[in-house]
Amino acid sequence: MADVAARAGVSIATVSRALRDVPGVSEPTRARIRELAAELSYVVSPQASSLSRRETGRVAVVVPRIDVWFYSAMLAGIEEVLRGAELDVLVYQVDGEAQRSRFFHELPARRKVDAVVLIALPVLAEEEQRLDLLGVQVIVAGGQLRDYPHVRVDDHAVALLAVRHLLDLGHRRIGMIRTHDTEGTRWSSDVERSRGYHEALASAGIGPDPELVVTRPFGVNAGAEGVDELLSLPEPPTAVFAYSDEIAIGALHGLLARGLRAPDDLSVVGVDGHPLAAPFGLTTVEQGVGQQARHAAAMVTHVVRGEPIEEPTVVLRPTLVVRSSTGPLRTRRAASASPAGGPSGSR
Amino acid sequence: MADVAARAGVSIATVSRALRDVPGVSEPTRARIRELAAELSYVVSPQASSLSRRETGRVAVVVPRIDVWFYSAMLAGIEEVLRGAELDVLVYQVDGEAQRSRFFHELPARRKVDAVVLIALPVLAEEEQRLDLLGVQVIVAGGQLRDYPHVRVDDHAVALLAVRHLLDLGHRRIGMIRTHDTEGTRWSSDVERSRGYHEALASAGIGPDPELVVTRPFGVNAGAEGVDELLSLPEPPTAVFAYSDEIAIGALHGLLARGLRAPDDLSVVGVDGHPLAAPFGLTTVEQGVGQQARHAAAMVTHVVRGEPIEEPTVVLRPTLVVRSSTGPLRTRRAASASPAGGPSGSR
Repeated sequence: MADVAARAGVSIATVSRALRDVPGVSEPTRARIRELAAELSYVVSPQASSLSRRETGRVAVVVPRIDVWFYSAMLAGIEEVLRGAELDVLVYQVDGEAQRSRFFHELPARRKVDAVVLIALPVLAEEEQRLDLLGVQVIVAGGQLRDYPHVRVDDHAVALLAVRHLLDLGHRRIGMIRTHDTEGTRWSSDVERSRGYHEALASAGIGPDPELVVTRPFGVNAGAEGVDELLSLPEPPTAVFAYSDEIAIGALHGLLARGLRAPDDLSVVGVDGHPLAAPFGLTTVEQGVGQQARHAAAMVTHVVRGEPIEEPTVVLRPTLVVRSSTGPLRTRRAASASPAGGPSGSR
Repeated sequence: MADVAARAGVSIATVSRALRDVPGVSEPTRARIRELAAELSYVVSPQASSLSRRETGRVAVVVPRIDVWFYSAMLAGIEEVLRGAELDVLVYQVDGEAQRSRFFHELPARRKVDAVVLIALPVLAEEEQRLDLLGVQVIVAGGQLRDYPHVRVDDHAVALLAVRHLLDLGHRRIGMIRTHDTEGTRWSSDVERSRGYHEALASAGIGPDPELVVTRPFGVNAGAEGVDELLSLPEPPTAVFAYSDEIAIGALHGLLARGLRAPDDLSVVGVDGHPLAAPFGLTTVEQGVGQQARHAAAMVTHVVRGEPIEEPTVVLRPTLVVRSSTGPLRTRRAASASPAGGPSGSR
């Protein structure tokens, strides 16, 4: 794309707009850009583009992994709505940096679908630009990318809800278990939740303590390992905010393995609304995965019918669901864990 | 299909073979059957059939639900292999009897794919016959259906491994938590595992006790509810074989909620190889989901290339993985729970 921009003497943004048929590029410039892009062998011909825009009856859904609950639930919800609209779903699993890079290089969904849904995929800047070459509308579910229509939860609000709940219970020493993928890619949800965590603490007059924030690669052991590290601190936290319910459930189990339990020894709050949260008594901030899926699928059906998307940005408000894994700070622990302050600082 | 058979004066099996191009039907009969089927408006024309057999580059994968671990893991494994073979995966989620019936009525995958993979789908006899109308090869993963190529675990051996492990530990009073879907459909895996359970007990000289077998609808509460029911018996079991790891994990949590734990109060063994089994210390019989997925996908790539499937029946041997959720029968419990016999009957 940079090549095309250089040869046409325009910005990359202009190339991007021209190839996507977004207004704001003059017809001669658009024609010249298409020509150059075609020469450079990666362009969508206008025929192929228009063909693929309405007539395949298929939609591509791109997920990092199918066998992780969040992605499978989002895919399930999207498939259900699109099936009802008589659209078929092509699924592309793009796990890890190598596969993602190959996907963006080969664009296997190109010309095969009427729209592409990306589910919470971390995308590098140079990969973003290649998305234009798909020649069809991109919709983002569970995240945000460029100016694409998208639906997501307010991740900052997620963290505020979780941490304020712990503050309300009297906790002052509150840890966070963060996560990243196996290659260390940060998700924007993680960044936003971390920001909310620090902000909620700051507004209660609690300064940052880097010891209390641990990061583990995403996986079944992340929660137990995170708890191990936090409880090994000279001054362990009395409550923890976990990046996801799967990590929180691992944390609950890590406690039991040490002969401890929530909330007596540690209050634990997760994020998601995972089906195991209720049976495990996990307090969580529900992000409405089913609702996100339905919004994204509705955007797709509009695009496929050639209709405008009425609301191209949908940011859902999360909901706190209190169960038995969180409880009031116990005075005895408070006395030993936080000698300087009492539980009076809660709001 | 019965209509065609009646009009052609042949058996339903012959109609089925004729429409699928399976040998054993004379050419005139085959032609007559195709003609009648076309009149009855649901046949695949030979052109469409041959077109769809090689040239779409797509494979349909039909699953009961995407957001249940077993299905998502199977779908993930199949997608990965097919992606490597440059085949696209269309996913059809067919949850519950109504959706399944609609799928088989409308056959939305017809003429759109080169092959169809059914993942562990319960299928009624009348639905089975409609599969021929897909006009492409059907492959079954995680189960068995008619004479289709298939890959599955030996579910009978799964139960033998699990229950013999408990017998070896000295348990004699062994319960089972079975499951069915929300509409009460029985899966063949459940039937086979139940048969293995009874057989293992019988071969240790233990007769059936209907009280010890409880059945709960599939879902997050099945395990905890099953444990509740078993532990409320006048003579509760000392060990339990759960249909799946998800149910076994629910059972472990149900124990904790009662202030009990495995294996001291109840030994628990599951089935699957779920990613949470290891962190929860769950003894399980692994069924090799990834391996099943790879076998099924390899069958698909052969079919799509027009090659014969070398091994059309793959039945994997399960593996027992012992962790901390199972342990020896404790004498005190044995005395109270099973006054008539001792732990000496173990093999």
